[in-house]
Amino acid sequence: MGWMADETGLEKRAANYVPLTPLSHLNRARDVFPDREAVVYGTARFSYAEYHARVSRLASALAKRGVAPGDVVATLIPNLPAQAEAHFGVPACGAVLNTINTRLDTGTVAYIFDHGAAKVVLCDTQFLPLAEAAKAACGGAGPDIIEVPDDQAGFPATARHTTYEELLATGNPNAKWHMPEDEWESLALNYTSGTTGRPKGVVYHHRGAYLMTMGTVISWRMQLFPKFLAIVPLFHCNGWNHTWMMPVLGGTVHCCRDVTPEAIYAAVADEGVTHFGGAPIVLNMVVNAPAEARKAFEHRVEVFTAGAPPAPATLAAIEALGFNVTHVYGLTETYGHVTECLWNPDWDGQADNEKAALKSRQGIAMPMMEYVTVVDERNQQVPMDKSTQGEIVMRGNSVMKGYFKNPQATEEAFQGGHFHSGDIAVQHPDTHIQIADRAKDIIISGGENVSSVEVEGVLMSHPAVSLCAVVAKPDDKWGEVPCAFVELKSGSEVSEAELVAHARAQLAGFKTPKTVVFQELPKTSTGKIQKFELRTLAKSI
Amino acid sequence: MGWMADETGLEKRAANYVPLTPLSHLNRARDVFPDREAVVYGTARFSYAEYHARVSRLASALAKRGVAPGDVVATLIPNLPAQAEAHFGVPACGAVLNTINTRLDTGTVAYIFDHGAAKVVLCDTQFLPLAEAAKAACGGAGPDIIEVPDDQAGFPATARHTTYEELLATGNPNAKWHMPEDEWESLALNYTSGTTGRPKGVVYHHRGAYLMTMGTVISWRMQLFPKFLAIVPLFHCNGWNHTWMMPVLGGTVHCCRDVTPEAIYAAVADEGVTHFGGAPIVLNMVVNAPAEARKAFEHRVEVFTAGAPPAPATLAAIEALGFNVTHVYGLTETYGHVTECLWNPDWDGQADNEKAALKSRQGIAMPMMEYVTVVDERNQQVPMDKSTQGEIVMRGNSVMKGYFKNPQATEEAFQGGHFHSGDIAVQHPDTHIQIADRAKDIIISGGENVSSVEVEGVLMSHPAVSLCAVVAKPDDKWGEVPCAFVELKSGSEVSEAELVAHARAQLAGFKTPKTVVFQELPKTSTGKIQKFELRTLAKSI
Ligand SMILES: Nc1ncnc2c1ncn2[C@@H]1O[C@H](COP(=O)(O)OP(=O)(O)OP(=O)(O)O)[C@@H](O)[C@H]1O
Ligand SMILES: Nc1ncnc2c1ncn2[C@@H]1O[C@H](COP(=O)(O)OP(=O)(O)OP(=O)(O)O)[C@@H](O)[C@H]1O
Ligand SMILES: [Mg+2]
Ligand SMILES: [Mg+2]
Repeated sequence: MGWMADETGLEKRAANYVPLTPLSHLNRARDVFPDREAVVYGTARFSYAEYHARVSRLASALAKRGVAPGDVVATLIPNLPAQAEAHFGVPACGAVLNTINTRLDTGTVAYIFDHGAAKVVLCDTQFLPLAEAAKAACGGAGPDIIEVPDDQAGFPATARHTTYEELLATGNPNAKWHMPEDEWESLALNYTSGTTGRPKGVVYHHRGAYLMTMGTVISWRMQLFPKFLAIVPLFHCNGWNHTWMMPVLGGTVHCCRDVTPEAIYAAVADEGVTHFGGAPIVLNMVVNAPAEARKAFEHRVEVFTAGAPPAPATLAAIEALGFNVTHVYGLTETYGHVTECLWNPDWDGQADNEKAALKSRQGIAMPMMEYVTVVDERNQQVPMDKSTQGEIVMRGNSVMKGYFKNPQATEEAFQGGHFHSGDIAVQHPDTHIQIADRAKDIIISGGENVSSVEVEGVLMSHPAVSLCAVVAKPDDKWGEVPCAFVELKSGSEVSEAELVAHARAQLAGFKTPKTVVFQELPKTSTGKIQKFELRTLAKSI
Repeated sequence: MGWMADETGLEKRAANYVPLTPLSHLNRARDVFPDREAVVYGTARFSYAEYHARVSRLASALAKRGVAPGDVVATLIPNLPAQAEAHFGVPACGAVLNTINTRLDTGTVAYIFDHGAAKVVLCDTQFLPLAEAAKAACGGAGPDIIEVPDDQAGFPATARHTTYEELLATGNPNAKWHMPEDEWESLALNYTSGTTGRPKGVVYHHRGAYLMTMGTVISWRMQLFPKFLAIVPLFHCNGWNHTWMMPVLGGTVHCCRDVTPEAIYAAVADEGVTHFGGAPIVLNMVVNAPAEARKAFEHRVEVFTAGAPPAPATLAAIEALGFNVTHVYGLTETYGHVTECLWNPDWDGQADNEKAALKSRQGIAMPMMEYVTVVDERNQQVPMDKSTQGEIVMRGNSVMKGYFKNPQATEEAFQGGHFHSGDIAVQHPDTHIQIADRAKDIIISGGENVSSVEVEGVLMSHPAVSLCAVVAKPDDKWGEVPCAFVELKSGSEVSEAELVAHARAQLAGFKTPKTVVFQELPKTSTGKIQKFELRTLAKSI
């Protein structure tokens, strides 16, 4: 090991070793960017000096209420200033932030209250009934509720609970923060989307979030003073850690309570938003926006998309509107994105559909990751031949500590020295990864693997299709056959037979859907299609 | 502390904890940017795939020669590909890189050979006589010499030693690297410039260099694929760690053996160089370049300057030529720059001389630092009133482990929980730091502090002055009085009386130099003026 013969006096000390934490970014921003706009929501605009003071109030007020280091503090809030403040204020009192998805059902929220054991929940007035019902359904006492009213959106305080501003009033704007003594201390507890079953509690460390912010700056080609529109819910992988990143760039978080095409175009055109992230479904929203929702703008907007495979057709359509999309991939377990479809300038000359196909690959490891690759069942690298399938695994500093109170699932996820994603992919000769499917979503027809993602890509290229999902339907002869569920664009029409023919023209017979069902698709609260529900449906057809 | 009630199974493991090291950047670049240009020197152009293979050869060849983890490997090389390769290849075999200043005298190099105990030295042919003499003058056997010839510059191999390419030929291009098991392992051993006395051996850890690269990307507003001209010698704070940073951006290192105005303009105009760093003396070189050395170019070049306070007049002159200068400040002890004069867009409207004055401040903490500030003798923050002087201190992850084999100096440097720079500064109300002087260079006249930097700034604003230094001269009445040493621009003339009058018009009487001496100034090999020599001279006048 790289220790010199004599290392007397060379140990770590306060001066040269500071535990990595995103909290450091905001402390620095208070000094360096005090007057720059930190957070904007409608008529509310906070400078970094104000933001820091509010965060300090929150941290000290929570401590006063008995929140101790290591305790869990939950939130049930859309992307509002209070939610951003909680990202700093909760850890600044040494507590662990548990952002909960506001679109979950009572049972799941009660499960999370019990499992995470939050002491306090900061809850938006709109979701108070949910929090109250979940608290009542809890095994234990459940968390104390602090109400976060939103007058601007028509959700004034109910007077049933202490409000957020009342809480802040009890705090100290100059309170000293609790900085981690060890960068491995827990920062956040995030439950997975529950796409494949019961959500699991993913624990983040301070180190991982810090390094995530530093790596993202590079991948997203960010420079000082970005204007960032918060579309990805902060309760989903902490919004891919972007709120933690903003202070290091002196950037502004523009809050977005309701994600609509109007809100997005207005933020870009009127506020000059330069960056946002969103699931492919958000890109579809931008592309399919009605004329009256659109606004003209001059600059190019940098967009990160992840969460599900974006259809090449969507990627091609959105670029023409002034958005440059970078396709990224990751999981709750990896703080959000850990691969990026890094654009190679040599591809600039390709045809538009070729470019879109290249962009739809999940790509290569982001800068903070040691590696992201594809392995077989024996944990061996698969050939990079763009056809051999294997599982995506990864190693790096923005990988979770593990699953909360679930050491067995943690062990399984980490076997072989890297994190197992459960996603099936091929690797191209240029090392870029392309997801074929989730392990659980692969369709096995007559012994052949069918990637639902590939079939969906073909269906999405039909002009009448707005959204679709392909799942396995049990079949006596083939074991399983592909079954498609389709949402049509408003005003469009197409028959089952036409769609099947459209697919057959581009796909092998065994990959072509045998059935097409036209209906609205069930989605998780992060906009993902819940295929397990569709599989149940497909069985019953 | 932020540990949750139940952290079973949440400990660090291979999957989620990777020691931070700049080596990771090059491993990733090999996969992600294999065909991009990594290093360029004249007709030599290496892609990232080639660079990685050469580094792997170097690491394995050194190991074969008996270099073990923790051993020291020295270099005496200008900014050439071999020097860049050593930055990765030496740590990739677990050894510690000791880049030695090629302009040092034999005695000092012998001192460093003895003190650092290098096993091997990679030495450029031009500096072989220096290495050979120093080895002969060593207390011990001294390092094995590997010769690095440079045919392009007219330094072919002497046949007295194994050459660098012969060494590489014994290595394995696919060798597995020795990655640190602990990010606190030693990466480099760098001797200070010796501006104030015997150089001290500063030890760097892997973690610090990694974080330095990530922070610099933000401060230098870097995006993918920069073309970086290596002007700051890699033997000076490892060239401010910029070579370690390039792979994370897929950037190109353009080597510069001899720093001349022709070389700089040619690199910018012909190779499209986008970034370089250099001491203020390099800026002067660019500004004062004769017409025939200049070349036209269209883009804006981003320049970092540090090492000594740049004169506002220099800053004003260079901007007009297409260079955007960011003034940064740091020490060997801090891996190079740790403050930046962060430009506030609100200043854009100021007059040019006002802007230059603002740019000449050393500024605020860079992103990877926890804080950089000014304290009094009791380690208390001084008032930020732009007049109270104190010492610059700092805390953060890009601070050295300590001084090699000098625990006492290490203790002193770190007393009070931060690193003491030995630089005297004031702090402005906007928290920006401005250096008044080195503690050792302050002139105390009639009980009043005189900043030599301030007096130099005024002298530099005279059109005939090319370079100057002001030091204390003992005086019976006042204790000390300012004494100026001046280099004139070629073809310019000015008398002592005229210069004194010029200074008096802008300065208080006690700050005005009593004596002006016209002569070439003694400089360190990093281009700094050796005031201790001038002080001796001043005494004897
Ligand atoms: N760019 C992408 N392309 C394809 N799939 C993606 C992409 N980004 C994310 N995904 C999918 O999303 C998953 C991560 O989602 P998340 O962590 O939000 O919860 P989930 O896996 O959907 O839910 P659960 O783990 O509870 O079943 C990945 O494993 C992958 O299947
Ligand atoms: N931007 C700057 N403005 C003013 N001074 C600077 C600046 N950058 C660096 N310096 C000076 O350079 C010093 C650091 O230089 P370096 O570490 O190369 O060795 P040195 O201090 O000159 O030599 P030694 O420590 O051996 O005397 C700082 O302490 C400071 O005095
Ligand atoms: Mg999952
Ligand atoms: Mg020094």
